[in-house]
Amino acid sequence: MKSLFANIMKEYEGYKIGKMLCYIQDPEMISFAGGLPSSDVFPLDLIQKTAEKSLQEDPDHVLQYSAIPGEKDLMEAIIDYLQKDNIHIKLENIMITTSGQHGIDLVGRLFLEHKDIIVSDCPTFGGALASFELEDAEYMAKDIEEDGSDVKGMEAGIENLINQGRKPKFIYVVPDFQNPSSITMSLKKRLAILSTSKKYGIPLLEDSPYRELRYKGKNIPSLYSLDKNQGNVIGIYTFSKILCPGLRVGFNIGPSEVVKKFSLIKGASILNTPKLNQDICTAFLREYDLDAHFNRARKYYSEKLNFFLEAMEENFPEDMGVRWTKPEGGLFLWITMPEKINTLELFYEAAKEKVAFVPGEVCYPKGYLKHNTMRINFSYPTKDEIVEGVKRLSFVVKKYLTENRKNISAK
Amino acid sequence: MKSLFANIMKEYEGYKIGKMLCYIQDPEMISFAGGLPSSDVFPLDLIQKTAEKSLQEDPDHVLQYSAIPGEKDLMEAIIDYLQKDNIHIKLENIMITTSGQHGIDLVGRLFLEHKDIIVSDCPTFGGALASFELEDAEYMAKDIEEDGSDVKGMEAGIENLINQGRKPKFIYVVPDFQNPSSITMSLKKRLAILSTSKKYGIPLLEDSPYRELRYKGKNIPSLYSLDKNQGNVIGIYTFSKILCPGLRVGFNIGPSEVVKKFSLIKGASILNTPKLNQDICTAFLREYDLDAHFNRARKYYSEKLNFFLEAMEENFPEDMGVRWTKPEGGLFLWITMPEKINTLELFYEAAKEKVAFVPGEVCYPKGYLKHNTMRINFSYPTKDEIVEGVKRLSFVVKKYLTENRKNISAK
Repeated sequence: MKSLFANIMKEYEGYKIGKMLCYIQDPEMISFAGGLPSSDVFPLDLIQKTAEKSLQEDPDHVLQYSAIPGEKDLMEAIIDYLQKDNIHIKLENIMITTSGQHGIDLVGRLFLEHKDIIVSDCPTFGGALASFELEDAEYMAKDIEEDGSDVKGMEAGIENLINQGRKPKFIYVVPDFQNPSSITMSLKKRLAILSTSKKYGIPLLEDSPYRELRYKGKNIPSLYSLDKNQGNVIGIYTFSKILCPGLRVGFNIGPSEVVKKFSLIKGASILNTPKLNQDICTAFLREYDLDAHFNRARKYYSEKLNFFLEAMEENFPEDMGVRWTKPEGGLFLWITMPEKINTLELFYEAAKEKVAFVPGEVCYPKGYLKHNTMRINFSYPTKDEIVEGVKRLSFVVKKYLTENRKNISAK
Repeated sequence: MKSLFANIMKEYEGYKIGKMLCYIQDPEMISFAGGLPSSDVFPLDLIQKTAEKSLQEDPDHVLQYSAIPGEKDLMEAIIDYLQKDNIHIKLENIMITTSGQHGIDLVGRLFLEHKDIIVSDCPTFGGALASFELEDAEYMAKDIEEDGSDVKGMEAGIENLINQGRKPKFIYVVPDFQNPSSITMSLKKRLAILSTSKKYGIPLLEDSPYRELRYKGKNIPSLYSLDKNQGNVIGIYTFSKILCPGLRVGFNIGPSEVVKKFSLIKGASILNTPKLNQDICTAFLREYDLDAHFNRARKYYSEKLNFFLEAMEENFPEDMGVRWTKPEGGLFLWITMPEKINTLELFYEAAKEKVAFVPGEVCYPKGYLKHNTMRINFSYPTKDEIVEGVKRLSFVVKKYLTENRKNISAK
C-alpha cells in the first residue's frame, strides 16, 4: 500500500525517540532518556479511591460516550486552578485534550497548510516537531539564549518572511524549563515576544508542562496571563507532569473561536476523553492538597537534580570541554559536547556500556540540525543509577574522544 | 486568529451530529439520535474489579507513559479473539487505538492528500466523513443496495477516475449492519469488492464496530478474513459497542507497513492509549464469558429492535409513504420519508414535540446530499420511550405533511 501513502507520510519517521527507546528495554540499561516524571510522587491513593468511586457512583456516564470538549466539572476545576496563576478564563476558553501531545497536534491541524512556517527556538521539544511535521511544516528557528528565546532574531526573521509573503502561522515556545534545554524565559523576553506576537498578528503557542516544577528562583508570569485575555496566546497544558502521564489528560486554553475548532477536530478524530480519567484529574484538583503535593514533588526532583549536577562535576572535568545547563526546574539537563562528538554515534556506543540519553538531533527543527548535544532526564533514575550512569557516560565520552583522535591522526 | 487557520478549517463544521446533540440535553426529550449502546449490558462488575486490580498490582506501569502501539497483553488477547472470526494475524499487524474514530482518522492522515478521492457507499458513517474532511477528501459514492455496496457501480466509477488520472486512495465500507442504513453486505458482494480492490490496487477500509451484534441470520465472513492476509484490507475495530464506549479503546489491523506508520502518527499526535483502559479490555477478552455476554447483549438489543419495528408498523401506515430498513443486527434503523420531507427541518419540528433523531444529511458524502432520510437508534431508549417516541415522530411527520400540502396549495 506504500505507494498510496500521502507524500509527507512516505518518508515520515515520527518522533525518533520512540525508535531509540527499544534499545532501552534492556534491564541493565541505566536510562537518562525518557521524559518521565517519577512514580514515587504519583498520588496513588487518590487515584485508586477516585477510580473506585467514579465507577461505583456514576457508571452510566463513566462508561458511555461523553461530551467532546470535556467534563464540565473538570473544566471548572481547571478554571479555578488557573486563577492562582493569574489566568482568568471562561468555559468557552478551555477544552480537555487527551494529553499535551494531543493539544499540540490540534494546533498543527487547525493552523497549518503544507510548507507553512513556524517560528521556534533551536533546540525545541522534539514531540512538537514530530507533530508539526505531520502537517509538513517548515521553520524559522533561532538559537535559544540563556534567558530564553532570541526575540530580536525572531522578529527580524518574521519581518523578512513577511516581506517574502510568507508570514509564519505561529510562534511555538516552552517558556518554563524548556524541553530540552531547561532554559526559562525572562520576564523581559516574555513581554518582548508578546509584543512581537501582537505587532505582527502571529499567535503565540505557549507549551506549559513543567511550570509547577520550579525548584528555585521566583515564578515568572506565563505568556497567557501577561496577554490579559487579548487573544494572542494559546496555552497547552497536561496532567502528565503534575499528576501522572498514564491517564492521558491535558487541556488547551485560548480564544473561544480557536477552542471551538479544537473541539470540532477532536470530535472528528477521537471523540471524548475518557470520563474515568477526567474524574481522577477533577478529584486531584478539587480534593487533594495541591500545595503539599507540589512541594513534595519539587523537593524530590530538586534533590535528584542537585545529585545529578554533582555527579556531572565529578565525572566531567573542565578540560573535557563538556558543558551543561543548571536548570531552576523541569526534568532535563541539556549537555553540549565538544563539536567533534556526534551524539547519535555516541548513543550506540553508550548503549554498549548500558547507559542511554536522548541525542540532541531530535530536538532541532528541520534545517537546523546540530550533532554535539544531548538531553538528559534526571527525574526518573534512582540516585544509585545517577552515580553509576554518569560514570559510564563519562567513560564513553573519553573513549570516543580518544578513538576519534586516533582516527584523525590515522588519516 | 481566524484568518490564520488552514483553508480547510476555516469553514469546517465537523461531525454535525454534535451540534444537534445540544438540543437533546432537555430531560423530556426522547432521543433516537445517539449511536449509544445501552449501559444495561455493560459488564460493570468486571470493569470495577479490573480497574481496582490494575491500579493495585501495577501502579508504576499504569500511571506512567506506556508503549505507543499498545499493551502486548491486550494485542495478544485480540489476536486470539480474532482467530474465531478466521482472522490470523501477528503482533506486527495490530495497533491499539484510542477508539474506532481514532482508527479511522489515522487512515485519513496516512493516505490522504488534499482532494484525494475515497470510494464509499451513499449513505455512509457520518463520523468517518467528518474525519476524512479534515484531510479535504473528495468522494466517488454509489447508492447502497439491499445486499450492500453497489460494487459494479463502484468499479465503473474507479475505472473512469483512473482514466482521468485520479485513482482513488481507498474504498471505505461498513460491511456488517452499516451505520446508518443497517444494511449487511452479502458474501457475493464481499468477494466482488475484494476482487475490485485487488484488480486496481486500492485498499479496502473495513469498519467493523457492530459485527458481534447480529440478532438473526448467519455470520458472513469479514473482508479481512476473506483476503487471507494478502494485504488488501485495513480493519477498524472498537471496544465501544462490544464492551463500552467510555474507555475509548479500539484497534486497527492491517499490513505491517501500514501499522508501523499508524504507530508513528499516533506517537506524534497522542502518544499511548491509557494502560488502565487497555487493562480493562484485556480482562474483558481473557476473563469474561464472552459468549454469554454477547448472547445477553444480542437478546437485549433484538427485543428492542422488534419492539421498535412494531411501533413503526403501528404508527406509520403504508399510505404515509414512509419506508424503513429491517436490520439483522447493529443499532440503527434507516428511514426514508416521502421526497417532499426535509428531515433537517423536521428535526427542529420534532424537537418541539420532544423527540429527536439524526437527519440523514450528515451521512452523505460531499456532493451526494439527500434530504428525506433519517437515522434512528433503537438500542438506547427504553421500551416506554420507544412507544411514546415513535407516536410523537408519527405526529410530527403527519403535521409536516399537512402543513407542507397547505403551503403548496397556497402558492
